[in-house]
Amino acid sequence: MKQLVFVRHGLSEWNALNLFTGWEDVDLSNKGVEEAKEAGEKIKEAGIRFDIAYTSYLKRAIKTCHFVLEESNQLWVPEVKSWRLNERHYGALQGLNKQETADKYGADQVQLWRRSYDTLPPLVEETDAKSSIHDPKYALLDRRSIPGGENLKVTLERALPFWEDNIAPSLLKGETVLVAAHGNSLRALAKHIENISDENIMSLEIPTGQPLVYELNDDLSLIKKYYL
Amino acid sequence: MKQLVFVRHGLSEWNALNLFTGWEDVDLSNKGVEEAKEAGEKIKEAGIRFDIAYTSYLKRAIKTCHFVLEESNQLWVPEVKSWRLNERHYGALQGLNKQETADKYGADQVQLWRRSYDTLPPLVEETDAKSSIHDPKYALLDRRSIPGGENLKVTLERALPFWEDNIAPSLLKGETVLVAAHGNSLRALAKHIENISDENIMSLEIPTGQPLVYELNDDLSLIKKYYL
Repeated sequence: MKQLVFVRHGLSEWNALNLFTGWEDVDLSNKGVEEAKEAGEKIKEAGIRFDIAYTSYLKRAIKTCHFVLEESNQLWVPEVKSWRLNERHYGALQGLNKQETADKYGADQVQLWRRSYDTLPPLVEETDAKSSIHDPKYALLDRRSIPGGENLKVTLERALPFWEDNIAPSLLKGETVLVAAHGNSLRALAKHIENISDENIMSLEIPTGQPLVYELNDDLSLIKKYYL
Repeated sequence: MKQLVFVRHGLSEWNALNLFTGWEDVDLSNKGVEEAKEAGEKIKEAGIRFDIAYTSYLKRAIKTCHFVLEESNQLWVPEVKSWRLNERHYGALQGLNKQETADKYGADQVQLWRRSYDTLPPLVEETDAKSSIHDPKYALLDRRSIPGGENLKVTLERALPFWEDNIAPSLLKGETVLVAAHGNSLRALAKHIENISDENIMSLEIPTGQPLVYELNDDLSLIKKYYL
Protein backbone atom coordinates (compact mmCIF):
# COMPACT_ATOMS: atom_id res chain seq x y z
CA MET A 1 0.00 0.00 0.00
CA LYS A 2 1.40 3.37 -1.11
CA GLN A 3 0.88 6.50 0.98
CA LEU A 4 0.77 10.07 -0.33
CA VAL A 5 -0.06 13.11 1.77
CA PHE A 6 -1.13 16.51 0.44
CA VAL A 7 -0.92 19.64 2.55
CA ARG A 8 -2.41 22.80 1.08
CA HIS A 9 -0.79 25.93 2.49
CA GLY A 10 -2.87 28.07 4.78
CA LEU A 11 -3.77 31.72 4.79
CA SER A 12 -1.27 33.99 3.03
CA GLU A 13 -0.88 37.72 3.47
CA TRP A 14 -2.76 38.33 0.23
CA ASN A 15 -5.61 35.92 1.01
CA ALA A 16 -6.17 38.13 4.01
CA LEU A 17 -6.27 41.19 1.71
CA ASN A 18 -8.58 39.45 -0.81
CA LEU A 19 -6.09 39.78 -3.69
CA PHE A 20 -5.51 37.38 -6.59
CA THR A 21 -2.16 35.72 -5.84
CA GLY A 22 -1.13 33.00 -8.30
CA TRP A 23 2.63 33.07 -8.85
CA GLU A 24 3.14 36.20 -6.73
CA ASP A 25 5.50 35.05 -3.99
CA VAL A 26 3.66 36.27 -0.91
CA ASP A 27 4.37 35.04 2.58
CA LEU A 28 2.16 33.04 4.93
CA SER A 29 0.17 35.08 7.41
CA ASN A 30 0.53 34.23 11.11
CA LYS A 31 -2.67 32.22 10.75
CA GLY A 32 -1.10 30.34 7.83
CA VAL A 33 1.95 29.52 9.96
CA GLU A 34 -0.34 28.14 12.67
CA GLU A 35 -2.21 26.03 10.10
CA ALA A 36 1.06 24.55 8.83
CA LYS A 37 2.25 23.71 12.34
CA GLU A 38 -1.09 22.07 13.15
CA ALA A 39 -0.82 19.98 9.99
CA GLY A 40 2.62 18.86 11.16
CA GLU A 41 1.24 17.96 14.59
CA LYS A 42 -1.49 15.82 13.00
CA ILE A 43 1.07 14.02 10.85
CA LYS A 44 3.20 13.41 13.92
CA GLU A 45 0.20 12.03 15.84
CA ALA A 46 -0.66 9.77 12.90
CA GLY A 47 2.92 8.45 12.96
CA ILE A 48 3.51 9.14 9.26
CA ARG A 49 7.21 9.06 8.30
CA PHE A 50 8.05 10.61 4.95
CA ASP A 51 10.82 9.49 2.63
CA ILE A 52 10.63 12.59 0.47
CA ALA A 53 8.87 15.95 0.39
CA TYR A 54 7.89 17.87 -2.73
CA THR A 55 6.94 21.52 -2.83
CA SER A 56 6.71 24.48 -5.20
CA TYR A 57 8.95 27.49 -5.85
CA LEU A 58 6.66 29.72 -3.79
CA LYS A 59 7.55 30.52 -0.21
CA ARG A 60 4.08 30.00 1.24
CA ALA A 61 4.24 26.34 0.17
CA ILE A 62 7.94 25.90 0.98
CA LYS A 63 7.46 27.29 4.49
CA THR A 64 4.40 25.07 4.96
CA CYS A 65 6.57 22.11 3.95
CA HIS A 66 9.24 23.14 6.47
CA PHE A 67 6.79 23.64 9.33
CA VAL A 68 5.11 20.29 8.63
CA LEU A 69 8.46 18.50 8.59
CA GLU A 70 9.77 20.32 11.64
CA GLU A 71 6.67 19.75 13.77
CA SER A 72 6.69 16.05 12.87
CA ASN A 73 10.43 15.75 13.70
CA GLN A 74 11.58 15.00 10.18
CA LEU A 75 13.16 18.21 8.95
CA TRP A 76 16.07 16.12 7.64
CA VAL A 77 13.86 14.41 5.01
CA PRO A 78 14.95 15.24 1.42
CA GLU A 79 12.97 18.04 -0.18
CA VAL A 80 12.60 18.83 -3.87
CA LYS A 81 11.11 22.08 -5.16
CA SER A 82 9.58 22.58 -8.58
CA TRP A 83 7.78 25.35 -10.46
CA ARG A 84 5.44 22.60 -11.69
CA LEU A 85 3.81 22.52 -8.24
CA ASN A 86 3.23 26.30 -8.22
CA GLU A 87 -0.24 27.71 -7.79
CA ARG A 88 -2.27 28.35 -10.94
CA HIS A 89 -0.89 31.49 -12.62
CA TYR A 90 -3.61 34.13 -12.45
CA GLY A 91 -2.24 36.26 -15.30
CA ALA A 92 -3.05 39.96 -15.29
CA LEU A 93 -5.38 39.45 -12.32
CA GLN A 94 -2.43 38.85 -9.96
CA GLY A 95 -2.24 41.59 -7.36
CA LEU A 96 -5.76 42.84 -8.06
CA ASN A 97 -8.44 42.95 -5.40
CA LYS A 98 -11.09 40.31 -6.01
CA GLN A 99 -13.97 42.62 -5.15
CA GLU A 100 -12.66 45.48 -7.30
CA THR A 101 -12.16 43.06 -10.18
CA ALA A 102 -15.76 41.90 -9.81
CA ASP A 103 -16.95 45.51 -9.76
CA LYS A 104 -15.00 46.24 -12.96
CA TYR A 105 -15.60 43.09 -15.03
CA GLY A 106 -18.82 41.84 -13.43
CA ALA A 107 -19.25 39.06 -10.91
CA ASP A 108 -20.15 36.53 -13.62
CA GLN A 109 -16.90 37.11 -15.53
CA VAL A 110 -14.84 36.80 -12.36
CA GLN A 111 -16.74 33.67 -11.39
CA LEU A 112 -15.93 32.23 -14.82
CA TRP A 113 -12.22 33.02 -14.43
CA ARG A 114 -12.22 31.46 -10.99
CA ARG A 115 -14.42 28.44 -11.56
CA SER A 116 -14.16 27.41 -15.20
CA TYR A 117 -11.88 24.50 -16.00
CA ASP A 118 -10.64 25.87 -19.29
CA THR A 119 -11.21 29.63 -19.43
CA LEU A 120 -7.97 31.57 -19.30
CA PRO A 121 -7.66 34.74 -17.22
CA PRO A 122 -6.44 37.91 -18.98
CA LEU A 123 -2.77 37.23 -19.75
CA VAL A 124 0.25 39.24 -18.62
CA GLU A 125 2.34 40.37 -21.56
CA GLU A 126 6.05 39.52 -21.52
CA THR A 127 6.83 43.24 -21.79
CA ASP A 128 4.93 43.86 -18.56
CA ALA A 129 7.25 44.21 -15.54
CA LYS A 130 4.84 41.90 -13.71
CA SER A 131 5.52 39.03 -16.11
CA SER A 132 7.03 35.98 -14.43
CA ILE A 133 9.74 35.87 -17.10
CA HIS A 134 11.51 38.62 -15.11
CA ASP A 135 11.55 36.55 -11.91
CA PRO A 136 15.00 34.98 -11.26
CA LYS A 137 13.26 31.81 -10.00
CA TYR A 138 12.44 30.93 -13.58
CA ALA A 139 15.74 31.96 -15.18
CA LEU A 140 16.56 28.35 -16.09
CA LEU A 141 13.18 27.75 -17.77
CA ASP A 142 12.66 28.18 -21.49
CA ARG A 143 10.72 31.45 -21.44
CA ARG A 144 8.08 29.90 -23.70
CA SER A 145 7.26 27.56 -20.79
CA ILE A 146 6.59 30.44 -18.40
CA PRO A 147 2.86 31.13 -18.44
CA GLY A 148 1.22 34.52 -18.81
CA GLY A 149 -1.89 33.08 -17.14
CA GLU A 150 -3.41 29.63 -16.59
CA ASN A 151 -6.70 27.85 -16.18
CA LEU A 152 -6.88 24.55 -14.27
CA LYS A 153 -6.46 22.59 -17.49
CA VAL A 154 -3.11 24.23 -18.21
CA THR A 155 -2.12 23.92 -14.57
CA LEU A 156 -2.75 20.18 -14.79
CA GLU A 157 -0.78 19.89 -18.03
CA ARG A 158 2.35 21.39 -16.43
CA ALA A 159 1.89 19.65 -13.05
CA LEU A 160 1.37 16.18 -14.52
CA PRO A 161 5.00 15.77 -15.73
CA PHE A 162 6.08 16.27 -12.12
CA TRP A 163 3.72 13.49 -11.04
CA GLU A 164 5.06 11.27 -13.81
CA ASP A 165 8.74 12.00 -13.26
CA ASN A 166 8.92 12.43 -9.49
CA ILE A 167 5.89 11.66 -7.33
CA ALA A 168 4.76 8.46 -9.05
CA PRO A 169 8.30 6.99 -9.21
CA SER A 170 8.76 7.75 -5.49
CA LEU A 171 5.50 5.96 -4.67
CA LEU A 172 6.35 3.04 -6.95
CA LYS A 173 9.69 2.67 -5.13
CA GLY A 174 7.71 2.32 -1.90
CA GLU A 175 8.38 5.79 -0.55
CA THR A 176 5.88 7.71 1.57
CA VAL A 177 5.50 11.12 -0.04
CA LEU A 178 4.56 14.60 1.18
CA VAL A 179 3.39 17.23 -1.30
CA ALA A 180 3.06 20.71 0.22
CA ALA A 181 1.54 22.95 -2.39
CA HIS A 182 -1.42 25.08 -3.46
CA GLY A 183 -5.18 24.87 -3.93
CA ASN A 184 -5.03 24.47 -7.69
CA SER A 185 -1.82 22.46 -8.17
CA LEU A 186 -3.12 19.95 -5.60
CA ARG A 187 -6.56 19.99 -7.23
CA ALA A 188 -4.91 19.21 -10.56
CA LEU A 189 -3.04 16.24 -9.09
CA ALA A 190 -6.21 15.10 -7.28
CA LYS A 191 -8.06 15.14 -10.62
CA HIS A 192 -5.51 12.72 -12.01
CA ILE A 193 -5.32 10.47 -8.92
CA GLU A 194 -9.09 10.32 -8.36
CA ASN A 195 -9.98 10.36 -12.06
CA ILE A 196 -12.39 13.28 -11.66
CA SER A 197 -14.12 14.70 -14.74
CA ASP A 198 -13.51 18.17 -16.18
CA GLU A 199 -17.06 19.06 -15.14
CA ASN A 200 -16.69 18.03 -11.52
CA ILE A 201 -13.15 19.03 -10.67
CA MET A 202 -13.77 22.71 -9.89
CA SER A 203 -16.12 21.77 -7.08
CA LEU A 204 -13.37 19.80 -5.30
CA GLU A 205 -12.09 21.97 -2.44
CA ILE A 206 -9.07 20.72 -0.51
CA PRO A 207 -9.17 22.52 2.85
CA THR A 208 -6.04 24.42 3.94
CA GLY A 209 -3.78 22.95 6.60
CA GLN A 210 -5.63 19.62 6.79
CA PRO A 211 -3.40 16.76 5.66
CA LEU A 212 -5.13 14.75 2.93
CA VAL A 213 -3.96 11.12 2.92
CA TYR A 214 -4.22 8.99 -0.21
CA GLU A 215 -3.77 5.25 0.09
CA LEU A 216 -2.95 3.77 -3.30
CA ASN A 217 -2.56 0.30 -4.77
CA ASP A 218 0.67 -0.91 -6.34
CA ASP A 219 -0.57 0.40 -9.71
CA LEU A 220 -1.29 3.79 -8.04
CA SER A 221 -5.07 3.32 -8.31
CA LEU A 222 -6.97 4.78 -5.37
CA ILE A 223 -7.85 2.62 -2.35
CA LYS A 224 -9.15 5.43 -0.16
CA LYS A 225 -8.60 9.02 0.87
CA TYR A 226 -9.14 10.72 4.20
CA TYR A 227 -8.23 13.88 6.10
CA LEU A 228 -6.23 13.77 9.32
CA MET B 1 35.70 33.16 -10.42
CA LYS B 2 33.86 30.61 -8.27
CA GLN B 3 31.99 31.69 -5.15
CA LEU B 4 31.30 29.52 -2.10
CA VAL B 5 29.71 30.78 1.12
CA PHE B 6 29.86 29.02 4.48
CA VAL B 7 27.41 29.83 7.26
CA ARG B 8 28.04 28.19 10.63
CA HIS B 9 24.85 27.83 12.64
CA GLY B 10 24.50 30.00 15.71
CA LEU B 11 23.74 29.27 19.33
CA SER B 12 21.78 26.07 19.93
CA GLU B 13 19.78 25.19 23.01
CA TRP B 14 22.59 22.93 24.21
CA ASN B 15 25.38 25.44 23.58
CA ALA B 16 23.47 27.64 25.99
CA LEU B 17 23.45 24.77 28.53
CA ASN B 18 27.17 24.01 27.97
CA LEU B 19 26.50 20.42 26.81
CA PHE B 20 28.44 18.40 24.24
CA THR B 21 26.13 18.21 21.21
CA GLY B 22 27.61 16.47 18.13
CA TRP B 23 24.92 14.48 16.32
CA GLU B 24 22.24 15.19 18.93
CA ASP B 25 19.52 16.97 16.99
CA VAL B 26 18.97 20.01 19.18
CA ASP B 27 17.21 23.14 18.04
CA LEU B 28 18.55 26.64 17.55
CA SER B 29 18.09 28.99 20.50
CA ASN B 30 16.31 32.30 19.87
CA LYS B 31 19.78 33.85 19.67
CA GLY B 32 20.72 31.25 17.04
CA VAL B 33 17.64 32.15 14.99
CA GLU B 34 18.64 35.82 15.13
CA GLU B 35 22.17 34.97 14.03
CA ALA B 36 20.85 33.02 11.03
CA LYS B 37 18.54 35.84 9.98
CA GLU B 38 21.37 38.36 10.26
CA ALA B 39 23.55 36.13 8.08
CA GLY B 40 20.74 36.13 5.50
CA GLU B 41 20.48 39.91 5.66
CA LYS B 42 24.23 40.26 5.03
CA ILE B 43 24.01 37.94 2.04
CA LYS B 44 21.09 39.94 0.69
CA GLU B 45 23.02 43.21 1.11
CA ALA B 46 26.03 41.67 -0.63
CA GLY B 47 23.75 40.70 -3.54
CA ILE B 48 24.84 37.06 -3.52
CA ARG B 49 22.47 34.79 -5.48
CA PHE B 50 22.85 31.07 -4.81
CA ASP B 51 22.27 28.31 -7.31
CA ILE B 52 22.26 25.57 -4.69
CA ALA B 53 22.33 25.18 -0.90
CA TYR B 54 23.88 22.28 0.99
CA THR B 55 23.22 21.47 4.63
CA SER B 56 23.39 18.62 7.14
CA TYR B 57 20.77 16.26 8.59
CA LEU B 58 20.65 18.29 11.81
CA LYS B 59 17.88 20.81 12.33
CA ARG B 60 20.08 23.60 13.70
CA ALA B 61 21.94 23.69 10.36
CA ILE B 62 18.83 23.07 8.22
CA LYS B 63 16.93 25.89 9.93
CA THR B 64 19.95 28.17 9.54
CA CYS B 65 19.93 27.33 5.83
CA HIS B 66 16.22 28.15 5.60
CA PHE B 67 16.52 31.46 7.47
CA VAL B 68 19.49 32.51 5.33
CA LEU B 69 17.62 31.70 2.12
CA GLU B 70 14.39 33.28 3.28
CA GLU B 71 15.97 36.53 4.49
CA SER B 72 17.86 36.85 1.20
CA ASN B 73 14.67 36.18 -0.85
CA GLN B 74 15.81 32.89 -2.33
CA LEU B 75 13.92 30.22 -0.41
CA TRP B 76 13.12 28.55 -3.74
CA VAL B 77 16.80 27.67 -4.35
CA PRO B 78 17.40 23.88 -4.45
CA GLU B 79 18.60 22.44 -1.16
CA VAL B 80 20.40 19.15 -0.58
CA LYS B 81 20.90 17.64 2.88
CA SER B 82 23.57 15.12 3.80
CA TRP B 83 24.77 13.37 6.96
CA ARG B 84 28.29 14.06 5.62
CA LEU B 85 27.89 17.72 6.62
CA ASN B 86 26.84 16.83 10.17
CA GLU B 87 28.77 18.16 13.14
CA ARG B 88 31.62 16.03 14.46
CA HIS B 89 30.13 13.08 16.38
CA TYR B 90 31.11 13.52 20.01
CA GLY B 91 30.60 9.86 20.98
CA ALA B 92 29.77 9.09 24.59
CA LEU B 93 30.31 12.73 25.53
CA GLN B 94 27.11 13.81 23.73
CA GLY B 95 24.60 15.18 26.20
CA LEU B 96 27.20 15.58 28.98
CA ASN B 97 27.92 18.91 30.60
CA LYS B 98 31.33 20.22 29.57
CA GLN B 99 32.23 21.43 33.05
CA GLU B 100 31.12 18.17 34.73
CA THR B 101 33.10 16.20 32.16
CA ALA B 102 36.18 18.28 32.96
CA ASP B 103 35.63 17.71 36.68
CA LYS B 104 35.42 13.95 36.10
CA TYR B 105 38.13 13.33 33.51
CA GLY B 106 40.35 16.35 34.13
CA ALA B 107 40.57 19.55 32.13
CA ASP B 108 43.59 18.30 30.18
CA GLN B 109 41.76 15.20 28.94
CA VAL B 110 38.73 17.22 27.90
CA GLN B 111 40.97 19.75 26.20
CA LEU B 112 42.59 16.89 24.27
CA TRP B 113 39.20 15.53 23.16
CA ARG B 114 38.14 18.99 22.06
CA ARG B 115 41.31 20.27 20.48
CA SER B 116 43.32 17.31 19.19
CA TYR B 117 43.08 16.61 15.46
CA ASP B 118 43.19 12.83 15.78
CA THR B 119 42.22 11.81 19.33
CA LEU B 120 38.85 10.06 19.43
CA PRO B 121 36.35 10.80 22.19
CA PRO B 122 35.02 7.83 24.21
CA LEU B 123 32.81 5.93 21.74
CA VAL B 124 29.11 5.12 22.10
CA GLU B 125 28.47 1.37 21.85
CA GLU B 126 25.91 0.21 19.28
CA THR B 127 23.96 -1.46 22.11
CA ASP B 128 23.61 1.93 23.82
CA ALA B 129 20.19 3.52 23.23
CA LYS B 130 22.09 6.77 22.53
CA SER B 131 23.89 5.25 19.53
CA SER B 132 23.09 7.03 16.26
CA ILE B 133 22.34 3.68 14.63
CA HIS B 134 18.91 3.87 16.30
CA ASP B 135 18.12 7.25 14.72
CA PRO B 136 15.75 6.93 11.71
CA LYS B 137 17.73 9.66 9.91
CA TYR B 138 20.48 7.13 9.28
CA ALA B 139 18.30 4.13 8.43
CA LEU B 140 19.55 4.10 4.83
CA LEU B 141 23.22 4.15 5.84
CA ASP B 142 25.28 0.99 6.18
CA ARG B 143 25.48 0.82 9.97
CA ARG B 144 29.25 0.38 9.77
CA SER B 145 29.38 3.93 8.34
CA ILE B 146 27.58 5.41 11.37
CA PRO B 147 30.22 6.66 13.79
CA GLY B 148 30.33 5.97 17.52
CA GLY B 149 32.49 9.08 17.92
CA GLU B 150 34.77 11.18 15.72
CA ASN B 151 37.83 13.38 15.81
CA LEU B 152 38.33 16.10 13.19
CA LYS B 153 40.38 13.72 11.04
CA VAL B 154 37.48 11.28 10.75
CA THR B 155 35.03 14.14 10.27
CA LEU B 156 37.13 15.33 7.32
CA GLU B 157 37.30 11.82 5.84
CA ARG B 158 33.50 11.52 5.74
CA ALA B 159 32.88 15.16 4.71
CA LEU B 160 35.39 15.12 1.84
CA PRO B 161 33.31 12.76 -0.40
CA PHE B 162 30.51 15.32 -0.21
CA TRP B 163 32.92 18.02 -1.39
CA GLU B 164 34.13 15.77 -4.19
CA ASP B 165 30.69 14.56 -5.33
CA ASN B 166 28.52 17.65 -4.76
CA ILE B 167 30.14 20.95 -3.75
CA ALA B 168 33.12 20.84 -6.12
CA PRO B 169 31.03 19.76 -9.15
CA SER B 170 28.55 22.58 -8.43
CA LEU B 171 31.39 25.12 -8.32
CA LEU B 172 33.01 23.69 -11.44
CA LYS B 173 29.67 24.07 -13.26
CA GLY B 174 29.75 27.75 -12.35
CA GLU B 175 27.20 27.62 -9.56
CA THR B 176 27.34 29.87 -6.51
CA VAL B 177 27.08 27.59 -3.48
CA LEU B 178 25.83 27.98 0.10
CA VAL B 179 26.92 25.50 2.76
CA ALA B 180 25.04 25.90 6.06
CA ALA B 181 26.62 23.55 8.55
CA HIS B 182 28.60 23.16 11.78
CA GLY B 183 31.84 24.31 13.41
CA ASN B 184 33.70 21.10 12.69
CA SER B 185 32.27 20.02 9.35
CA LEU B 186 33.00 23.52 8.00
CA ARG B 187 36.45 23.45 9.60
CA ALA B 188 37.11 20.14 7.86
CA LEU B 189 36.12 21.57 4.47
CA ALA B 190 38.14 24.73 5.17
CA LYS B 191 41.20 22.56 5.87
CA HIS B 192 40.85 21.07 2.41
CA ILE B 193 40.09 24.34 0.60
CA GLU B 194 42.79 26.37 2.36
CA ASN B 195 45.29 23.49 2.54
CA ILE B 196 45.80 23.92 6.30
CA SER B 197 48.10 21.50 8.13
CA ASP B 198 46.95 18.96 10.74
CA GLU B 199 48.85 21.01 13.34
CA ASN B 200 47.19 24.33 12.54
CA ILE B 201 43.63 23.35 11.73
CA MET B 202 42.28 23.18 15.29
CA SER B 203 43.11 26.83 15.85
CA LEU B 204 40.87 27.87 12.92
CA GLU B 205 37.62 29.21 14.38
CA ILE B 206 34.81 30.05 11.97
CA PRO B 207 32.53 32.47 13.83
CA THR B 208 28.82 31.62 14.03
CA GLY B 209 26.34 33.47 11.86
CA GLN B 210 28.99 35.36 9.86
CA PRO B 211 28.95 34.37 6.22
CA LEU B 212 32.43 33.29 5.10
CA VAL B 213 32.96 33.90 1.39
CA TYR B 214 35.54 31.92 -0.56
CA GLU B 215 36.54 33.14 -4.01
CA LEU B 216 38.14 30.31 -5.96
CA ASN B 217 39.95 29.92 -9.27
CA ASP B 218 38.68 27.65 -12.02
CA ASP B 219 40.77 24.80 -10.53
CA LEU B 220 39.17 25.52 -7.12
CA SER B 221 42.41 26.94 -5.69
CA LEU B 222 41.89 29.81 -3.27
CA ILE B 223 41.94 33.41 -4.48
CA LYS B 224 40.75 34.99 -1.24
CA LYS B 225 38.41 34.59 1.69
CA TYR B 226 36.52 37.19 3.69
CA TYR B 227 33.64 37.53 6.12
CA LEU B 228 30.54 39.55 5.30
